[in-house]
This record gives sequence, C-alpha cells and structure tokens, in this order.
Amino acid sequence: MESSDIAFRAEVVAADLERVRGILGATGFFSAEEIEVAVELCQAAIDDGDATTYPFLFAEVEGEVVGYACFGHIPGTRASYDLYWIAVAPHTQRRGVGGALLGETERRIATRGGDRVYVETSSRPQYDPTRAFYEHHDYLRAAFLEDYYAPGDGKIIYVKQLGPRGD
Amino acid sequence: MESSDIAFRAEVVAADLERVRGILGATGFFSAEEIEVAVELCQAAIDDGDATTYPFLFAEVEGEVVGYACFGHIPGTRASYDLYWIAVAPHTQRRGVGGALLGETERRIATRGGDRVYVETSSRPQYDPTRAFYEHHDYLRAAFLEDYYAPGDGKIIYVKQLGPRGD
Repeated sequence: MESSDIAFRAEVVAADLERVRGILGATGFFSAEEIEVAVELCQAAIDDGDATTYPFLFAEVEGEVVGYACFGHIPGTRASYDLYWIAVAPHTQRRGVGGALLGETERRIATRGGDRVYVETSSRPQYDPTRAFYEHHDYLRAAFLEDYYAPGDGKIIYVKQLGPRGD
Repeated sequence: MESSDIAFRAEVVAADLERVRGILGATGFFSAEEIEVAVELCQAAIDDGDATTYPFLFAEVEGEVVGYACFGHIPGTRASYDLYWIAVAPHTQRRGVGGALLGETERRIATRGGDRVYVETSSRPQYDPTRAFYEHHDYLRAAFLEDYYAPGDGKIIYVKQLGPRGD
C-alpha cells in the first residue's frame, strides 16, 4: 500500500465510537477497561470538538477507517505530548498504515507546538511487536518501571524528540 | 510534634476546597494550573464520596487542616497507586506532619490492596527538598525523563514497594 492511498481525518463523528471499539477489540491488545476509556475519550472529542484535550486522528483506506491514534498535550509540560493509543485493524496490519499514521500524528503534534512524544507499553512478550514498532520509528526507551502493571509486567516508556517541524 | 497530635480524616467536605487551594498556594511549589486540577479533584471526591477515583487524606492538628494527600489506583494496573499530591502548610513544615501523612497514606493504599506507590517530581533544584523527602521515606528513583516538563526540567519517578500491610 502506498502512503498516498491513506487519507487522514481529524474530525470525530458519532460512527467513530463503534469503529474505535471495533479496531481495539480486533487487535486483542487492549483490555475491556482500556477500550471503554478509549470510547469515552472519543465521545469527549465529539462533544468538545476542536477544543478537545484528546485529539484523534483516523486513517482511512478506500473510505474505510482502518486505524486511529489518540494523543494529547501533557498538562504541566511545555511541549510534551502523550500518544495514548495507536491501533490498526488486524486485516490491514503489515501494510504500512501504522507507520504512516504514527508519522502523521507526529506532524500534527509538531504543528501544535509539541516537541516530544511519549508512549507507554508493557514489557510482556505479547507486546514485542508493539515495542519493535516504536523502536523502528526512532522511539527511544526512556524508562522501565518493573512490575508496574502487575508482577512480571513492567511499564516501558518511550520518547521521541521531534524536529522543528516534526521531521 | 508527636504523631499522636495529628488526626487524619478521609471524608472530604466543601470547606476543603479552599483549604486545598490555600495549602498548595502557600507552599509555592505548585502552578496555578496544578492547583486548579487539585481543587477539581477535591470537588470530584465530594461528589463521588467513597466511590471516588481520587481519595483524599487530610492531616489535622488541633482542628486545623495542615496538610493533605491525594492518591489513586492507576487504571490498568493490578496494585499500583499514584500519589498525586502531598502538601503541608509551610507554617507547619519541618515538624513531622509530612512524614506522618505519607505513612498514613501508604497504610491506606495497602489497605485498599495497593502494593506500589509512584510519585513524580521535577528534577529542578527547587524540588531538592521534595526529592530528599521521598528518599528519606524509602522511595527509590525509578526513572528520569529528561526535559519532560521543559528544556532542563526533567521528570523523576519514584516508587516505593509496600509490605504486605504497608510496613
């Protein structure tokens, strides 16, 4: 798939609530609790429009939403952003959508004045592909919090410093 | 001051909103933005009662609220808690209230099933006393996120593993 086949959309519409639920559920990487929080934030983004604290970005291929990211400025920081969720529907994975979505998210964070992106993930083997994805896209491992999620399940914090224009 | 002179109160009442604002403001360690968030969480604790996501604990000496802590279970974790705020009014600092309040907060976290407490602070020299306070109370430096808050202002994450009963 060429990057040019992917369209991005920042506006959030009501139909996205079920799309978010569907994509996260299909990946198998998110708990029921995490999915509910994601759907709540999606509703908040609909309610608050451009003023939302948690902007979304949807990736569409041939009119179908195949992935999305949700990010936000970290309160109390000058220019740090959290990437809360990035997920691509399993049937479109390994086709470059994730990388394109991540790159477009970084560009939009930079446009908003952000210069650092943080993302957290689990140290469990199940998340090896997730960590490989971030590392492939130049995210650096900034911290490891042992047993954070549960015994044997630590949290890894990645960071990427963005160039002046997100390059 | 003897620890026995300090009374703890978990119930949050309307008058606490201004007490929280007053204590945080008096310390000079919190931004206006952080103070507003703290007051909002205090209001949420009043509204939600025992079901609140952000429990408070007030320390009183001779009927006066001289400090407080606000903490909460970290969603998605088995037994990790964040200590969001702990603050003692400047005129009662250096008299053991902070340590007693921290210890009582840890006991209440343990009672709720928590076994790890995380707390975050800035790497700036202004926060040397804050970091010394946590280190004195057996918090270990788990991570340093460079330039997190702003250039030259990193985030330090401390953790304390609680004993089976918070000992």
